[in-house]
Amino acid sequence: MSTLFLRTLREDPADAEVPSHKLMVRGGYVRRAAPGVYSWLPLGKIVLENVSEIVREEMNAIGGQELLLPALLPREYYEATGRWEDYGDTLFRLQDRKGADYLLGPTHEEVFAGLVKGEYTSYKDFPVWLYQIQEKFRDEARPRAGVLRGREFHMKDAYSFDIDDEGLAASYERFRAAYVRIFERLGLEYVVVSATAGAMGGSKSEEFLAVAPSGEDTFVRSTGSGYAANVEAVEVPAPEALPIEGLPEAVDHHTPDTATIRTLVDFLNAAGLGRDFSEADTLKNVMVKTREPGSEDWELLAIGVPGDREVDMKRLEAALEPAEVAVVDEKDFEANPFLVKGYIGPRALLDNKVRYLVDPRVVTGTRWVTGADRPEHHVVDLVAGRDFTPDGTIDVADVRDGDPSPDGQGTLYTARGIEIGHVFQLGRKYTDAIELDALGPDGKPKRVTMGSYGIGVSRVVASIVEQSHDEKGIVWPRAVAPADVHVVGTGKGDQIEEALRIAGELEERGLRVLVDDRKGVSPGVKFTDAELLGIPTTVIVGRGLKDGVVELRDRADGARDEVALADIVDHAVQACTA
Amino acid sequence: MSTLFLRTLREDPADAEVPSHKLMVRGGYVRRAAPGVYSWLPLGKIVLENVSEIVREEMNAIGGQELLLPALLPREYYEATGRWEDYGDTLFRLQDRKGADYLLGPTHEEVFAGLVKGEYTSYKDFPVWLYQIQEKFRDEARPRAGVLRGREFHMKDAYSFDIDDEGLAASYERFRAAYVRIFERLGLEYVVVSATAGAMGGSKSEEFLAVAPSGEDTFVRSTGSGYAANVEAVEVPAPEALPIEGLPEAVDHHTPDTATIRTLVDFLNAAGLGRDFSEADTLKNVMVKTREPGSEDWELLAIGVPGDREVDMKRLEAALEPAEVAVVDEKDFEANPFLVKGYIGPRALLDNKVRYLVDPRVVTGTRWVTGADRPEHHVVDLVAGRDFTPDGTIDVADVRDGDPSPDGQGTLYTARGIEIGHVFQLGRKYTDAIELDALGPDGKPKRVTMGSYGIGVSRVVASIVEQSHDEKGIVWPRAVAPADVHVVGTGKGDQIEEALRIAGELEERGLRVLVDDRKGVSPGVKFTDAELLGIPTTVIVGRGLKDGVVELRDRADGARDEVALADIVDHAVQACTA
Repeated sequence: MSTLFLRTLREDPADAEVPSHKLMVRGGYVRRAAPGVYSWLPLGKIVLENVSEIVREEMNAIGGQELLLPALLPREYYEATGRWEDYGDTLFRLQDRKGADYLLGPTHEEVFAGLVKGEYTSYKDFPVWLYQIQEKFRDEARPRAGVLRGREFHMKDAYSFDIDDEGLAASYERFRAAYVRIFERLGLEYVVVSATAGAMGGSKSEEFLAVAPSGEDTFVRSTGSGYAANVEAVEVPAPEALPIEGLPEAVDHHTPDTATIRTLVDFLNAAGLGRDFSEADTLKNVMVKTREPGSEDWELLAIGVPGDREVDMKRLEAALEPAEVAVVDEKDFEANPFLVKGYIGPRALLDNKVRYLVDPRVVTGTRWVTGADRPEHHVVDLVAGRDFTPDGTIDVADVRDGDPSPDGQGTLYTARGIEIGHVFQLGRKYTDAIELDALGPDGKPKRVTMGSYGIGVSRVVASIVEQSHDEKGIVWPRAVAPADVHVVGTGKGDQIEEALRIAGELEERGLRVLVDDRKGVSPGVKFTDAELLGIPTTVIVGRGLKDGVVELRDRADGARDEVALADIVDHAVQACTA
Repeated sequence: MSTLFLRTLREDPADAEVPSHKLMVRGGYVRRAAPGVYSWLPLGKIVLENVSEIVREEMNAIGGQELLLPALLPREYYEATGRWEDYGDTLFRLQDRKGADYLLGPTHEEVFAGLVKGEYTSYKDFPVWLYQIQEKFRDEARPRAGVLRGREFHMKDAYSFDIDDEGLAASYERFRAAYVRIFERLGLEYVVVSATAGAMGGSKSEEFLAVAPSGEDTFVRSTGSGYAANVEAVEVPAPEALPIEGLPEAVDHHTPDTATIRTLVDFLNAAGLGRDFSEADTLKNVMVKTREPGSEDWELLAIGVPGDREVDMKRLEAALEPAEVAVVDEKDFEANPFLVKGYIGPRALLDNKVRYLVDPRVVTGTRWVTGADRPEHHVVDLVAGRDFTPDGTIDVADVRDGDPSPDGQGTLYTARGIEIGHVFQLGRKYTDAIELDALGPDGKPKRVTMGSYGIGVSRVVASIVEQSHDEKGIVWPRAVAPADVHVVGTGKGDQIEEALRIAGELEERGLRVLVDDRKGVSPGVKFTDAELLGIPTTVIVGRGLKDGVVELRDRADGARDEVALADIVDHAVQACTA
């Protein structure tokens, strides 16, 4: 440490909000070069490399082949798949000296697909699994939290190419299993959630989320099982249909001053209708409009949800994708006078051929208080399957803590996570765009199908810190720590010399050692730095040396043991290999 | 090889001119993604990594600390040092979504200096040696020759920071010595030439050139010593001054029709002046104009060189740097009527205060035929130091094969090389720009001085191929080869199975093995591929197997040995570790 390019900081950086950002800067692991753009200093580079190496080993173990592609990519690749436009402002675009358009690769589906097209021609060539570990570039609107959401970041991106859907499913499982092993080895607490594919297109996909309160992704998990899912992907279980027979007839009521669900429920409970009403007994009809990709025209869509729920816009967008969705405006109401604001009901919607989708809880036989399509009127006991038949269901109501888990075990609660990995069955979106075919056994061309598998390597480093730190600093899991042992020599006498000697012996025993051989630095500062840096095992060569005793500390549990000088190497080796 | 992402090509790529480009593409080591932008396929990635690792080891051995900086850099860094402009079209510039200016790092002097400024404050912190291995971006006007001159390329860039000039000199020697070790380990034939610093600024610098006819850099070397230099850096030895006494007086002659040096010499030899003249006896005065950085005004400059030589513009630019230089035009002649085109002589130049610099060979006592400042007139026997005294010397005449070597041993000849490394004593150009100071022992701030040391890692890979190939393919030096042994199983019977078994045993013995286990591929194709790929040792498991014999081949010398099956593993291990 007397020569290491490292200066720790006592103060949190002004722009830092999350623990990993604060501690990685204070510990001298990274330094900011620009918003969302970081330099990795010596210890940080080692950690980044340790994580990369674990990822590399597991990718190689499943037959992944490592390549290295450029970051600077010509527009043509992304033009063919539409992503030149689709990425919007998130893509860094530039021109070369001849005015040709380029981009900085945010992910490399197109280029890998193009490579495979250039090399492979026969079904016998497949499957093939390719990956790289490389810088990626995305012009995030709000780069934040240090390397947790950077604009230049390190990523392992992998791609599978298969000749048929069964192959893709097998490749997907292969990568998914490797991801489980990687995140286990990294010591991360994580969940795997079903995801919607977003800008990537395609079908099945799952996200690996590191559980952390600072995470940007919200997900729900069950109190009674391992169930976890993105909010967008939660599937509300539909109750059994109820018998219609014997239900009272629907009756319209004059319901003045019931502009909100709450006032409506109060009115109903005061109206002497012979039973109690709650918000969940009302059916709220929310108007939006949708537009299919490539179309000019917007179409009205009504969504019926129980009055105690809101339509969750993220879930709605995910459910309607790839169609666009927008809220209706005054003009839409003017153009459709049957829509009586505040009193929209299923009957007018269906009579006027407005597409009407309802929450899965609105099953046949359920009865509802809902709009009567006249100002200040509601209908009571409108029964699904008797008085109205919606065009289908749509699962977009907000998900709440306490909702039953879709797997029937326990109830849901909300948690936050950091997306550290993502596995996608892309299917043929990209291979269609570039016409990647292979000759099948019958001599006919077959379209190749593709999967894409990413791990945010630099983000993983920060996620580990998010999960593994205390008020004093980082607590690195040994698998990724910048060193196994931190040997601290304190004092002005022989201690530093002895520390260097012990460090040398530990290195000979195969350990990775950081030794604090700084002169003129107080023991207190050295201890504080050691705790901030977070190397798993510390050996303190201090005042006890004159009595032949040094101290062995464990960063994670704080345990301190006095050890005879003669035994310290063995003890430290034992601690590091336990 | 049955699953390796590799397809060799029989034909050279249409755009390839140099051997490394042809062979690296044909051997499936790289693929072009855009002009000057390449993807590294699996075997290429291994070679690139092998070269990087040798560089890394030697950098670590001299106390270099590895960092990893971003490629995406804000304009401010390069604005401060003027390089945002100076780099011209070679810099890839872009804007982020907020319109802020960024560039893709062509080299990282500014950012490293900024990092050191952020961390270090005292003279005790120095020296420090930092490096990274990273992608670099330069928008070359003519990207060519595959990865030999790419627009995105891999580079090791290192920087030294010292508190004084002696420190810088020591750091420089430290890196220079490490470079010698690196290029030795890589098995490259190289020369170290003095270089001018170009856009980097600063003082002492040397280039490491891999000797190769395809190289873009011309350099001269001596027939009689290890002397080598860039043409710009050749220092022509000045002859001893001659006695003036006894030399004939200068006489002006009417010399009609002597527009060229050749016609002038013929005229003189026909004029009966009592001796023979050659072109080397004439003094040619070349007019240019120069402009100092930041200045608006051009100043005339006359350069006198022996008539058998030309002014070498590259040498001239290097000699005058950082001033700009341009040729004079008609307006300059009109403004200076004493300049008689074709007959410009030292007398008018000096009389009219034009700055006049001469070749080092124009020493006191040499006599010259030169312009007499009148149309169709020359002066004969104009003696330097008697009839004119130039303002100084300038070493910008062209360097020719057969010129004496500046070290006095042998004569010079021209060769070509590829710049694979560069060491610079930058001095304080960058630290001045960002005001990088450290507190000296006296408590006063001292400006830090800086060195910069680059190795073009991807270019090194291509340079190795340039030097190490034959008509059949690449011949990798073992230190960087993608594998130690290439085990080729031919035929349809047990050979492939046996090849796999041998490969397994070789791997257990610690060798890196590529095994050709492809079925349905002819022995001829496998042999051709093996020679193209260029792995140092090949084991052929073919027809001899039924007699218990396999073949051991050496790629470099072509030697072939029949070896008993039982002995092949030992023999191969021996061949690979010899």
